[in-house]
Amino acid sequence: MNKNVDFYFDYGSPATYLAWTQIDKIINDGKAKLNMIPMLLGGVFKETGNSSPAFIPAKSKWMGKDLKKHADLYGVEYNSNSFFPINTLNLMRGAIAAKKMNIFEKYSEAIFTGIWVKDVNLGDLTILQNYLNKNEIDSTQLFDLVQSDKIKSELIENTKQAVEKGVFGAPTFIVNNELIFGQDRLEFLKMALK
Amino acid sequence: MNKNVDFYFDYGSPATYLAWTQIDKIINDGKAKLNMIPMLLGGVFKETGNSSPAFIPAKSKWMGKDLKKHADLYGVEYNSNSFFPINTLNLMRGAIAAKKMNIFEKYSEAIFTGIWVKDVNLGDLTILQNYLNKNEIDSTQLFDLVQSDKIKSELIENTKQAVEKGVFGAPTFIVNNELIFGQDRLEFLKMALK
Repeated sequence: MNKNVDFYFDYGSPATYLAWTQIDKIINDGKAKLNMIPMLLGGVFKETGNSSPAFIPAKSKWMGKDLKKHADLYGVEYNSNSFFPINTLNLMRGAIAAKKMNIFEKYSEAIFTGIWVKDVNLGDLTILQNYLNKNEIDSTQLFDLVQSDKIKSELIENTKQAVEKGVFGAPTFIVNNELIFGQDRLEFLKMALK
Repeated sequence: MNKNVDFYFDYGSPATYLAWTQIDKIINDGKAKLNMIPMLLGGVFKETGNSSPAFIPAKSKWMGKDLKKHADLYGVEYNSNSFFPINTLNLMRGAIAAKKMNIFEKYSEAIFTGIWVKDVNLGDLTILQNYLNKNEIDSTQLFDLVQSDKIKSELIENTKQAVEKGVFGAPTFIVNNELIFGQDRLEFLKMALK
C-alpha cells in the first residue's frame, strides 16, 4: 500500500516553502501519496502557545542565514520577503478554493514563489488579485469562492484538526500517525516512507 | 591552520547532550580545535527573549520523540530527565571549576550522562555532591571553587559574551564568525570545517 503524507502548510512560512520545493521528489521516491492541507499558522500559534522564531531578533538573524544555506544545499532560489510577516488568511482560503477549481498546484507555485522568490507583498489584496491574473489564475472566480462561508469554515476546521493532531508549527508532515516537524526533518520523512 | 570551534553549552539542554556525544569525531575529522564554553542558558533566554521549546506542550511532545530519533541515529543512549528543567547554575559554575582542576572532560561526561542517560536530579546540591564523589571527582575542592567570586563572574561574563556574539540557545557553535545553532545542524558544522 502507498503511504499517505499529510503536509500541513501555510504559504507565509519560509521553511514550508523550502520543504515544498523538495516534496515532489520525496513523494515519488517513496511511492507515497501527498495530501496538502492548508491551515492558518497564526491560528495554530495562538492555540498552542507557540510563536514564530522570527520574533526573537537573534534567532531571526540566524534563521535567515540557515534558510539560505538550506536553499543552496537544495539548489533552489530563496529570498527573504520584505513584507514578512504576511497575513495569509486570504491566501490559505485561496488554497482551498484553488483545490475546488482544480488549479491547486498552479496556485501554490504562484503563491510560494511570489512570496519566497519574487518578494511580492501578497498580503495586499489588490496586489494579490493582479498577481493571480498575471499568472493566469482567474482571481474573480477564486475570490468568489474565498468569500464563501463554506471555504471560511473549511480553513477553520483544518486548523482545528491540525492542532488536535499535535501540529504546532509549519511545515508538519503526518505519516501513519508519526508527526514530523520542520523542513530540516525531511530525512525523517524519507525514513518514514521506507 | 586548524580551525577553532567555540561550543557554547549548558548541561541542562538535551540537544546539547546529543551534540556533545558527536563532537569529538567531528573535531577529529575536521582537524579542528575544540573550545567548550560554559554559559547559563537561562540567562541567554532572558537576555534574548527566547525560551525553551519544552514549555510549548505540543512542541515538547514532538521534541521528546525527535531527540530519541536522533539518539538512535547516532547510536547513543538518551533518556528524558524526570526533573527537567534542572537549575544548572552550580553545574555550569562547576564546569569552569573543573577546567581549573584539569578534570573538565571527566566532569562533563559525568554531568551530561547523569542528566541525560541516568535520570539523576543534579539540580539538587546534596545529590550532586554525592554523585560527583561516586564518580571520583573531589566535590569539596570543586565546590570551594564554585563558590568563589572569580568563577561566578566568569560564568556571567561567558553568558554575556555569548549573547553579544548572537547566541540565543544551545548548543551553539561558532567557527570563523559563522554561528551554527542546534544539534540538528552538525552537517553545517562539518561543512564549516572543510
